[in-house]
Amino acid sequence: MREPENPTYAYLDAFVEELARNGLSNVVICPGSRSTPLSYAFARNGKIKLWMQLDERSAGFFALGMAKAAGYPVALVCTSGTAAANFFPAVVEAHLSRVPLLVLTADRPPELREIGAPQAMDQLRLYGTYTRWFMEMALPEATNEMLRYVRTVAGRAIASALGRPAGVVHLNFPLREPLVPAPIPGQILPLPEKRDSVAWQGRPSNQPYVTGLRTGRGWPTNLSYNFSRWSRGLIICGPTSEYHLEYNQTIICLARQLGWPILADPLSGLRSLSTEEGFIIDNYDAFLRDAAVLEPLAPDFVLRFGAMPTSKPLLLFLAHSPQVETWLVDGGDGWEDPTALASQVLHVDPIAFCKMALLELQGFSPASNWSQRWQLVAQQTAAAINRQMAECQELSEAKVFAELSQLLPNNTLFYVGNSMPIRDADTFFKSNCRNIRVLGNRGANGIDGVVSSALGASAITPLPTMLILGDISFYHDMNGLLAAKRHKLNLTIILLNNDGGGIFSFLPQAAYPDNFEELFGTPHGLDFQHTAALYGANWRRVESWEDFRSAVQTATKTNGLNLIEVPTNRARNVSQHREIWVAVNQQLAILAPQLNVLAQAEKPKVIAAE
Amino acid sequence: MREPENPTYAYLDAFVEELARNGLSNVVICPGSRSTPLSYAFARNGKIKLWMQLDERSAGFFALGMAKAAGYPVALVCTSGTAAANFFPAVVEAHLSRVPLLVLTADRPPELREIGAPQAMDQLRLYGTYTRWFMEMALPEATNEMLRYVRTVAGRAIASALGRPAGVVHLNFPLREPLVPAPIPGQILPLPEKRDSVAWQGRPSNQPYVTGLRTGRGWPTNLSYNFSRWSRGLIICGPTSEYHLEYNQTIICLARQLGWPILADPLSGLRSLSTEEGFIIDNYDAFLRDAAVLEPLAPDFVLRFGAMPTSKPLLLFLAHSPQVETWLVDGGDGWEDPTALASQVLHVDPIAFCKMALLELQGFSPASNWSQRWQLVAQQTAAAINRQMAECQELSEAKVFAELSQLLPNNTLFYVGNSMPIRDADTFFKSNCRNIRVLGNRGANGIDGVVSSALGASAITPLPTMLILGDISFYHDMNGLLAAKRHKLNLTIILLNNDGGGIFSFLPQAAYPDNFEELFGTPHGLDFQHTAALYGANWRRVESWEDFRSAVQTATKTNGLNLIEVPTNRARNVSQHREIWVAVNQQLAILAPQLNVLAQAEKPKVIAAE
Repeated sequence: MREPENPTYAYLDAFVEELARNGLSNVVICPGSRSTPLSYAFARNGKIKLWMQLDERSAGFFALGMAKAAGYPVALVCTSGTAAANFFPAVVEAHLSRVPLLVLTADRPPELREIGAPQAMDQLRLYGTYTRWFMEMALPEATNEMLRYVRTVAGRAIASALGRPAGVVHLNFPLREPLVPAPIPGQILPLPEKRDSVAWQGRPSNQPYVTGLRTGRGWPTNLSYNFSRWSRGLIICGPTSEYHLEYNQTIICLARQLGWPILADPLSGLRSLSTEEGFIIDNYDAFLRDAAVLEPLAPDFVLRFGAMPTSKPLLLFLAHSPQVETWLVDGGDGWEDPTALASQVLHVDPIAFCKMALLELQGFSPASNWSQRWQLVAQQTAAAINRQMAECQELSEAKVFAELSQLLPNNTLFYVGNSMPIRDADTFFKSNCRNIRVLGNRGANGIDGVVSSALGASAITPLPTMLILGDISFYHDMNGLLAAKRHKLNLTIILLNNDGGGIFSFLPQAAYPDNFEELFGTPHGLDFQHTAALYGANWRRVESWEDFRSAVQTATKTNGLNLIEVPTNRARNVSQHREIWVAVNQQLAILAPQLNVLAQAEKPKVIAAE
Repeated sequence: MREPENPTYAYLDAFVEELARNGLSNVVICPGSRSTPLSYAFARNGKIKLWMQLDERSAGFFALGMAKAAGYPVALVCTSGTAAANFFPAVVEAHLSRVPLLVLTADRPPELREIGAPQAMDQLRLYGTYTRWFMEMALPEATNEMLRYVRTVAGRAIASALGRPAGVVHLNFPLREPLVPAPIPGQILPLPEKRDSVAWQGRPSNQPYVTGLRTGRGWPTNLSYNFSRWSRGLIICGPTSEYHLEYNQTIICLARQLGWPILADPLSGLRSLSTEEGFIIDNYDAFLRDAAVLEPLAPDFVLRFGAMPTSKPLLLFLAHSPQVETWLVDGGDGWEDPTALASQVLHVDPIAFCKMALLELQGFSPASNWSQRWQLVAQQTAAAINRQMAECQELSEAKVFAELSQLLPNNTLFYVGNSMPIRDADTFFKSNCRNIRVLGNRGANGIDGVVSSALGASAITPLPTMLILGDISFYHDMNGLLAAKRHKLNLTIILLNNDGGGIFSFLPQAAYPDNFEELFGTPHGLDFQHTAALYGANWRRVESWEDFRSAVQTATKTNGLNLIEVPTNRARNVSQHREIWVAVNQQLAILAPQLNVLAQAEKPKVIAAE
């Protein structure tokens, strides 16, 4: 394969190469100018057979017949304008007859649309509901991140076309001039020198995406062999709507069998149904900020369940080593991979997956101190945080969560608001065995509608329900409180009131004092006592930790709507979080030598020949 | 106003500045992180009043009330995710009650969409049919072209929200980190040193877009003053569906009164309804390729009617001087401005506009030799082309058009195919006074459906109809020929058969011989005699110009479907075009000294104080 001459070609070469790796072997191309880079990328690749067609309508049906016969996606390429509209009849037929097609349309870039430029029409969602998946692609760029992105889309497109039912995937490529492979010196400099390593960063294995039972393409084979190749595996459990004992237990069994730590998001369900206190790593958000532990904790394999966890330090930790083999198990056929790190996306039932792996792994015993290292770091982090919490006299948002992990009765439904609350819950609401079901709205992560969502949950659960959220989020959905009154619902709301948008004080915006308070701080000065009065809530604004504890205890025994307001301070909140991270840092500095000795003692595993 | 620190801020500063220039004076902002650059850009501008709102649903209705009271658009800003969905109720209300709103939503860039990234949802066409206009914006860049683009969208958004009926405009901004105004040295280097000149390049006048009678905002005032400020005006008539004597005559009258040349596209209607042979400039595509004439022909004002003309040299000529004041008159309320050069877009009836201008300009007399210069260049170009045509013995695509401008009977409907035919018609089909109505499909410029379109036209026009198109285009719609048989339609088709896609030989792709013939040349080797037999057409493949002339003359007297095939050669076609351009170039080299003398003799006009 030749070297790409400019970013467009680097991007599309990677895209086509990934299609070939995923088993695509036929492309039907219609001639055109805007689509030149796509056509060339297929021609240059050499592993995919080209079929030229002059009439796009015929081309569409030609590809359809081919895909029907092969039972595998065929790609279709055309230029911008009505060319793409000519594919429509075949797209409809493919959709209705469940034939996998991959439609790749070239388009003008955004700045040349809807301005009367020639051969340009609106191609976004051109085929309406007749596609399984539509993506407006990013403009070509040749950075590692964007090459990983485009490779991921390629694999995902094949998997998606082969979904249940099979159908059409439409990717629309905005392309700028030059359309030909004219060299643009310096434009692909960010790439590593060796092209191989780019591909490898994008997709370390040569296997296609595994889509498992759902698409009839088979389970990942030989799990025991696969897993035993790695000595530093990590199981990461993100937010999920799966919530039952069996899900938790089978993942925990697999982790024990492999000797791999579990990093569990507060919304994963694994923090409160575990069978043993301290087994789940629940404070990684605090210690993964610390450069000293990153090396001894670096994994060589990641097995993910659920969505990407809330913690940004964890995300950065994973993104820092894109070469690590990463499997993502998603029983919901999704693609929760914001940093495009997954090398395998498994559309299989997670419980069945774990059980099959367990069957295969009988007799397997982990030998390294890998798990022990994570436990040590987590324990020391917990010790540092506990000390900070114990010393903290003033009312603070972090400590509210630490307190609640003790105060909440067993079998509580705990609804956590977005923005800061879910993040503080991540670090300060400790893992436990008391069946505290933590819920949150992490589909779109909105601060809107949280009050109503918690009321809705409380309306149908037999568990007592508690909601914690910030003042802006509370304000946003105050109207929702009416439902509590009308339907006589029981809910205790803990309102963290720092009079404004607290999260912004943690973001880079805070370094720009001009307009900060006006645009981001947004203090409202509302007295929510009136809100409580309006909706008949029991209201209490606490002034000390004794107050707080007594208020929570009273509320858990009081029916109806309880509103416990905890006044906090935005600036102090930031400084306290920073103090905690410093304390963790100091604690881990003491641990570091021991950690490094352990890491060096670990014998490097001999990788079995493939 | 402060200097932008990075491309995102250069881009959004320009956007907001242009909104302010267009009279926007209120923005309702909801706090958020992804929307930081939008919020800051408004805050930095200083001319627009900020209204912070914490609940997006309330914010939407707040802006609605404000816009209702003001009768002018109010901007609404929110961050990505469900924040934007909270605007929906107010968007619906604004749509139904015809209130102008400008909704600006921040979004993640394409590579962070649909991958489970936090606070990201599909925001494309979020409000469905409840907006007058939706645009997915380009990612911020700080080149002159992109700053002109974003300024144009700003003005257009205001005009569009104020359209008839008024309503909602939704612009979705993909934004990458850094979201704060962190300096990125070197990233805005392409800008000229003085910031002023950027703004000036984008929009030379400080006036808002004029949207004329249609929106009740008044006609452009004082046309005589406006027009008399310029001594080198140019009237450009692009493709249009307006086609009648009055349209042509009033534009020609205005041109005569002002002493400005008319450059008319073959699809403008002006080339064949003019009252005087030679008055319309019809071969600019040939001479604007010549650097020697660009300076003496440089305009200081451009008045455009219709869509952007077909000619690329004309487009480059205009784009080369973005500072030239450009007015675009569009009676169809469109925005046909592919290079974002218009300083005024006038949504007014073109005939009424010309008549009002003529009324105001009574007594005005142009004094310069400006028009004479254009006539001289056009005459000499025509002489060079005519010599080339006369010398050409072989069958050639260019000469087919030159021949047809003599051969076609008066009052013919002449349908011209896309790709090369419309371009050759532009240069070689001469302006005349014989009411030859030229039509083409230039909405999306497709090569598809041309045969059927011409048959449709022939079915309802009383004029004899002739179609000229290339072989790929003909092949694409061969099925359409059935209609001629079934409905007994009369059509003569001139099929330029060079066995493949001829236009690609003119494009940069031709410089890359690998796969060129396979991917772009696409020879099909079809013998269209069989097609003629299939559909009962009178078929004749001509071998000489005598043959051709006799075939056309016979066809014009023969009912039914006539197919005249002209075999040409792709490679020779390119070389002939190049020879013609060289001949024009040599002819103009002789003219150049005279032209420069004329240009220097022109007294610079004293610009009246504003």
